[in-house]
Amino acid sequence: MKVTFLGLGVMGFPMAGHLKRAGHDVTVYNRTSSRAAKWVETYGGTAALTPATAAKGAEIVFACVGNDDDLRSVVYGPDGALAGMSVGALFVDHTTASAEVAREIDAAAREAGLGFLDAPVSGGQAGAENGKLTVMVGGVEKDFDRAKPVIDAYARACVLLGTAGSGQLAKMVNQICIAGLVQALAEGMHFAQQAGLDGAKLVEVISKGAAQSWQMENRANTMLDGKFDFGFAVDWMRKDLGICLAEAKRNGAQLPVTALVDQFYARVQKRGGGRWDTSSLMHPLTNP
Amino acid sequence: MKVTFLGLGVMGFPMAGHLKRAGHDVTVYNRTSSRAAKWVETYGGTAALTPATAAKGAEIVFACVGNDDDLRSVVYGPDGALAGMSVGALFVDHTTASAEVAREIDAAAREAGLGFLDAPVSGGQAGAENGKLTVMVGGVEKDFDRAKPVIDAYARACVLLGTAGSGQLAKMVNQICIAGLVQALAEGMHFAQQAGLDGAKLVEVISKGAAQSWQMENRANTMLDGKFDFGFAVDWMRKDLGICLAEAKRNGAQLPVTALVDQFYARVQKRGGGRWDTSSLMHPLTNP
Repeated sequence: MKVTFLGLGVMGFPMAGHLKRAGHDVTVYNRTSSRAAKWVETYGGTAALTPATAAKGAEIVFACVGNDDDLRSVVYGPDGALAGMSVGALFVDHTTASAEVAREIDAAAREAGLGFLDAPVSGGQAGAENGKLTVMVGGVEKDFDRAKPVIDAYARACVLLGTAGSGQLAKMVNQICIAGLVQALAEGMHFAQQAGLDGAKLVEVISKGAAQSWQMENRANTMLDGKFDFGFAVDWMRKDLGICLAEAKRNGAQLPVTALVDQFYARVQKRGGGRWDTSSLMHPLTNP
Repeated sequence: MKVTFLGLGVMGFPMAGHLKRAGHDVTVYNRTSSRAAKWVETYGGTAALTPATAAKGAEIVFACVGNDDDLRSVVYGPDGALAGMSVGALFVDHTTASAEVAREIDAAAREAGLGFLDAPVSGGQAGAENGKLTVMVGGVEKDFDRAKPVIDAYARACVLLGTAGSGQLAKMVNQICIAGLVQALAEGMHFAQQAGLDGAKLVEVISKGAAQSWQMENRANTMLDGKFDFGFAVDWMRKDLGICLAEAKRNGAQLPVTALVDQFYARVQKRGGGRWDTSSLMHPLTNP
């Protein structure tokens, strides 16, 4: 299938690569064009100089960029993807963005005779590289059925959760659950250290019971070692939590611990940890 | 082996039963003696009228009572277990109590020529009934090696974590990790409802990734249904968090989210939910 991928960051670069390896005819675009050149050098395919030219003739145009504004800049205007796409084509957005921008682009796409899915992912850089992302999708079933076999090139789960925006809302729930969970784990590990316990031995025991979590199994020991270089960065988490808290203001949800943890992440940023991973909530506890 | 079990609550009753079924010669004591009579009726064995008489001649005396004061009342004084125990016998305390009381009883036991282990459990009523508790132990290896084969009657894991008090400290870490985790999950599920998402479908997706936890897999759907009748009660959790926060004051650990969640549980108690399970943190969010 002729497809386009816009945005070749740590996620987009390998995701587009999986599409190429699956046999699709892939054209890519990246704001910094040297990165697009590197992608072509790695995987083959074609690089274009604007989203509009990249999108020309594609059945599906994928995007995975930084935030709402980055997304709007590759979608709208004379150089934007919508200007290049043919009637009947489908735009699939993998950016973690607001539900608002998803609904807005959905409306714009529909008016132009195009389909739209918001499809943020979880699984991080490792998931993107080994093709095992979880994809949370909002949109209509007809579009989902078209996109899913293609997305499967880099997903181990791809689920339609509701109308446009639902994918973004689902991703927000995911990040809300993680934020407080990681803080609780950090407080537990910090307490263990203050109490003089053998943390690794302790984690082995309590991870068999009701305190168990993916984070405990994968991050507790590195937290105890004060190593925060294993995954999703604090800067990105703060962007995501900002989206969650703004949406909560709209839908009336109360997120007291999520809001507090967002402030703890602000503290981590202030001490130069913006690129540390999310488990660095341990740092302000052990180094007040 | 001749053993004694003090305290036949929701945990102790089935735990002592497992000892009897494993072939031990079990004598029990319970403050409310009708409960001891019921135990004898269910399992056989012998009931005694005081901890001291119950402990007479036992190689190991187990206790599982409510709190520090309950524990002191079955241990000390002319009717207390220590008064009845023979030199060389071992006292194993399964109560979730303070590390302080563990160290205090350890010292008293040692002075009387007895051994002591603090050995709080996790796994709840279900774990006690089906003999699959996790037991976190503090004490010396010699005593641990004696007790473990007996404890195995109701444990799927039984681990020595350090000197006297270490079992209690480990249990505290377990409860700290659970408290913030359940609040994060509650905020996530509450947000999902406010956003109009299909919660059950969403949980199925996000429980495959970095937000996964035992609590998500076992409590998210009942939280979404507003059902809080599935496990460890809020009253007990508040007792445990009180112990955690007092110990944190001593060891200097910072527990901002744990302290906040303790206050949310206070809110649940105020609305009559003291016997609801810990997942009822959802209630103040959905019914502000």
